[in-house]
Amino acid sequence: MHAYRSHTCADLTAANVGDTVRLSGWVHRVRDHGGVLFIDLRDHYGVTQVLCDGDSAAFAALEKVRSEWCVRIDGTVKARAADLVNAKLPTGEIEVYVSEVEVLGAAEELPLIVFGDQEYPEETRLRYRYLDLRREAMQRNMTLRSDVVASMRRRMWDKGFREYQTPIITASSPEGARDFLVPSRLHPGRFYALPQAPQQFKQLIMVSGFDKYFQIAPCFRDEDPRADRSPTDFYQLDLEMSFVTQQDVFDTIQPVLRGVFEEFGQGAKVDADWPQISYRDAALWYGTDKPDLRNPIKMQDCSEHFRGSGFAIFAKLLEQDGTEIRAIPAPTGGSRKFCDRMNAFAQKEGLPGMGYIFWRDQGEGMEAAGPLAKNIGPERTEAIRQQLGLGVGDAAFFLGGKPKVFEKVAGKARDAIGADLGLTEKDRFAFAWIVDFPIYEQDEETGKIDFEHNPFSMPQGGIDALEGDPLSVLGYQYDLSCNGYELVSGAIRNHKPEIMFKAFEIAGYGKDEVEKRFGGMVNAFQYGAPPHGGCAAGIDRIVMLLADTANIREVIMFPMNQRAEDLMMAAPSDPTSDQLMELGLRVIPQDD
Amino acid sequence: MHAYRSHTCADLTAANVGDTVRLSGWVHRVRDHGGVLFIDLRDHYGVTQVLCDGDSAAFAALEKVRSEWCVRIDGTVKARAADLVNAKLPTGEIEVYVSEVEVLGAAEELPLIVFGDQEYPEETRLRYRYLDLRREAMQRNMTLRSDVVASMRRRMWDKGFREYQTPIITASSPEGARDFLVPSRLHPGRFYALPQAPQQFKQLIMVSGFDKYFQIAPCFRDEDPRADRSPTDFYQLDLEMSFVTQQDVFDTIQPVLRGVFEEFGQGAKVDADWPQISYRDAALWYGTDKPDLRNPIKMQDCSEHFRGSGFAIFAKLLEQDGTEIRAIPAPTGGSRKFCDRMNAFAQKEGLPGMGYIFWRDQGEGMEAAGPLAKNIGPERTEAIRQQLGLGVGDAAFFLGGKPKVFEKVAGKARDAIGADLGLTEKDRFAFAWIVDFPIYEQDEETGKIDFEHNPFSMPQGGIDALEGDPLSVLGYQYDLSCNGYELVSGAIRNHKPEIMFKAFEIAGYGKDEVEKRFGGMVNAFQYGAPPHGGCAAGIDRIVMLLADTANIREVIMFPMNQRAEDLMMAAPSDPTSDQLMELGLRVIPQDD
Repeated sequence: MHAYRSHTCADLTAANVGDTVRLSGWVHRVRDHGGVLFIDLRDHYGVTQVLCDGDSAAFAALEKVRSEWCVRIDGTVKARAADLVNAKLPTGEIEVYVSEVEVLGAAEELPLIVFGDQEYPEETRLRYRYLDLRREAMQRNMTLRSDVVASMRRRMWDKGFREYQTPIITASSPEGARDFLVPSRLHPGRFYALPQAPQQFKQLIMVSGFDKYFQIAPCFRDEDPRADRSPTDFYQLDLEMSFVTQQDVFDTIQPVLRGVFEEFGQGAKVDADWPQISYRDAALWYGTDKPDLRNPIKMQDCSEHFRGSGFAIFAKLLEQDGTEIRAIPAPTGGSRKFCDRMNAFAQKEGLPGMGYIFWRDQGEGMEAAGPLAKNIGPERTEAIRQQLGLGVGDAAFFLGGKPKVFEKVAGKARDAIGADLGLTEKDRFAFAWIVDFPIYEQDEETGKIDFEHNPFSMPQGGIDALEGDPLSVLGYQYDLSCNGYELVSGAIRNHKPEIMFKAFEIAGYGKDEVEKRFGGMVNAFQYGAPPHGGCAAGIDRIVMLLADTANIREVIMFPMNQRAEDLMMAAPSDPTSDQLMELGLRVIPQDD
Repeated sequence: MHAYRSHTCADLTAANVGDTVRLSGWVHRVRDHGGVLFIDLRDHYGVTQVLCDGDSAAFAALEKVRSEWCVRIDGTVKARAADLVNAKLPTGEIEVYVSEVEVLGAAEELPLIVFGDQEYPEETRLRYRYLDLRREAMQRNMTLRSDVVASMRRRMWDKGFREYQTPIITASSPEGARDFLVPSRLHPGRFYALPQAPQQFKQLIMVSGFDKYFQIAPCFRDEDPRADRSPTDFYQLDLEMSFVTQQDVFDTIQPVLRGVFEEFGQGAKVDADWPQISYRDAALWYGTDKPDLRNPIKMQDCSEHFRGSGFAIFAKLLEQDGTEIRAIPAPTGGSRKFCDRMNAFAQKEGLPGMGYIFWRDQGEGMEAAGPLAKNIGPERTEAIRQQLGLGVGDAAFFLGGKPKVFEKVAGKARDAIGADLGLTEKDRFAFAWIVDFPIYEQDEETGKIDFEHNPFSMPQGGIDALEGDPLSVLGYQYDLSCNGYELVSGAIRNHKPEIMFKAFEIAGYGKDEVEKRFGGMVNAFQYGAPPHGGCAAGIDRIVMLLADTANIREVIMFPMNQRAEDLMMAAPSDPTSDQLMELGLRVIPQDD
């Protein structure tokens, strides 16, 4: 017989009754029923009930074992009495009568109980991660993550993509975030950097003629702490293709992600239709470029109904350039109580409040209630109702000003309204491509033009488009939003050196600067670069959605804490003076 | 029609004759045959011949294109005349008559020609890697690497393993080599390290109850330059399993690797029988723990034949403790010319020479020739011949002294003899497990006992074995050798804290030191650690064997040069003073 097990703890069924078996695993739970010891023996695969009474030679040894001891037992499979069968357990028909036990690994007193759902501070969980990971939910999350990534790989291979590894110790890639640096020993005083993303490398792979690249790629950013992100690194499904249009990229990644969500979504509805919404429409309709389309509410521009109306605040606002009044329709929200609650929400978000109208049945007809309706009069109120397609029992909220200023709050109000009224569907994954991002944005204060997203995207209209108003130039640049999160970001790249230099010039970067910062890629573009594009999907976020958790540390095996420390391995730590000497570095004493 | 292509450059056959098609790719070669332009258009998938004469509207544009320009062409598929069909090319039956051409990416004058086999200095190849990678051999090597890794993943999944990612930014792991450090910004003056291997993490994954782990894992070591290794990082197929014996690990990895070699070995014979050879026997028989079993030569101990013999050098040598005389049989090597050549080889390796005997046909019988035979006389010579199983036309070489001193040269001589005589098979992958490594070794000079391999292996015999002579303790520790290279290394781990502390104590490490250096893992072992073991296979080396190259940079997409520089991306580079300030570091000026 094998030294440790003839079966896993999920294997034995009624078919094994009478067999002599060997199991290894952890003592999940011990119960002493008057001289009979019952132990739930657990391994990665399942749980088997083993038992022993005073007649067994193993009794004395088994009496000593405690929770989370790792043991091997030998025994005989017995059928459980019909009334003791546990139908929820694959091994619920049987139990194993123990004849021998060997302690493989004893355990000290536990700082964290594996059995059950007791909650522990995150510091405890991370310090004793190896115990935390034994818990059922963590076993599930980690295998989910592994299976999601495996499924992505299979799907990409099936589409003719190959995975190519790009360097992890490389050059600083100024892509907006902060680099992690790695001092060089062979070149003291000089530094490598960990890649923020394989962006330049994947584009170089296209220039090298590989046609279809993907990678489950670690990305490193020295980020300030935030609950929903790792302070050090994250993983992307990164892909790039040559000779493609934006639609080709969509047609490639959509079935991959849809397949993954269908495979692991536990029956939640996965939308087949992924609408393409322009960045501008997304801002208008949803107040964000990552709309949650499970929420059916679509905002509308109602400016015309307020222009010159009796509601002086809005009427006056509209006299300023670039202002608008937008409505958030709230079907079934037609009660003063609800409207007041949402108004309070807006105040909490820093607004003076949200104007509203709601429609109620008033004996001989519909009545539009609320101060706003009174101020603008019945005709305008009715026109608004008709535009928004609302009726008795519904409401609408109004926000005004410069869209850039109130859009974010409007988006949040839409979320709150959808959730409060139960309009936002549950158990559904709703996707939307956000397209036509502007290439540039203008800093409100300085007036400086800079890249809105990333500087590598091809402007729609090519070089000609860059001759006009930069702020009106759109890019072949896209995001995928799912349930209010950005899951994917990508672009058709700017592969033409002359368009690239021009695009950077508009953002205030001279040729020298571009060559210095992106030299590797820009040089390569001088030697027959193919048109190419791609995208990157956030794996941590996808697994978080599928595992239904908002804490990224629930889906990473050994995460840092929010102070970017690994408590279990004691990182970061003090270097030795030899190490510093070899690297040609000195630590500057800190005041603290 | 698609913006860039209706087909790839490998798609078109006689079945497409008459079709209007669109292709995109690189101009591989241009030939001008008297007013008719022939272009080999190349993409990742293949080459298609396109052509154009003065009648085509595209002629003027096509006349301008040069090698490595990226172009799109539209045209009509025509059958080639029977005598012009190129049977070697999938598209060799057709050519495309061009009606339109668009330059997608022009190219400056090329620093490296893609077409053909011209050799370039490595610096040129790495600086213009995107051109180098377009060459056929590099396209093949990179896709081979990708396919090998994909095949490994598929095979591991099929065996019930899941891939779990372990941290890349983590704590220093003192495993013998030098760490790359990463300064922390949030904790100025403290450092993370890049993992030399996921060793501790994979063992922690076992303690966490995951049962079967694998990972295609990047490993980082700050190594001094050497031609056959990367100065920064390498990749392992890393695996670990709980509740297993050494044989279970072999039974897991052997079919995976054998499958990979069969799949990608291009018809070379892949041995099915992987013998298990003890470390001690390997040293005796092959002079190395990475024997090349394609070479049938097995060395033997011939000490007894020389003890007290007339060959004074050996006879005297044998009077010293711990000395031996070993023979390298050389079947078919029975000529003075060959023996002298091998003797010269030994001298080049720093030995005074190798004694030899060779047997030749001498009219009425066999004659043993060479000075050695004369010195020891016919009886001893014949006894040697019989022990070695040699005959007329064969030879044997002899080396003496302390085995540790001459074994390495003996191993090299065995290689040279096998190669010179054509005994070493070609087109074959021959594997051997080397087992029973000693846990400890003794420094010749200081007499200090230290770990021979890695300190995490379980000693055979457990704690009891550690009570006796440390140098006689063997470990459950193994390597896999293939054609003279170490492909895999692994062990059943020491998962019992008391055995671990004892093992470290013998090597001179106190409990505090162990807890400081391996705290994460040693702490975990206090909480019910399962018996576990595994191994790691070197991916770069496997791909090198399959690609039949001795230069690791041929199988890495974007490698560093031997000075650990990335010439294309300009790494390492000078940090900005802001970066240093944030990290709390100062660069010490170097004298140079």
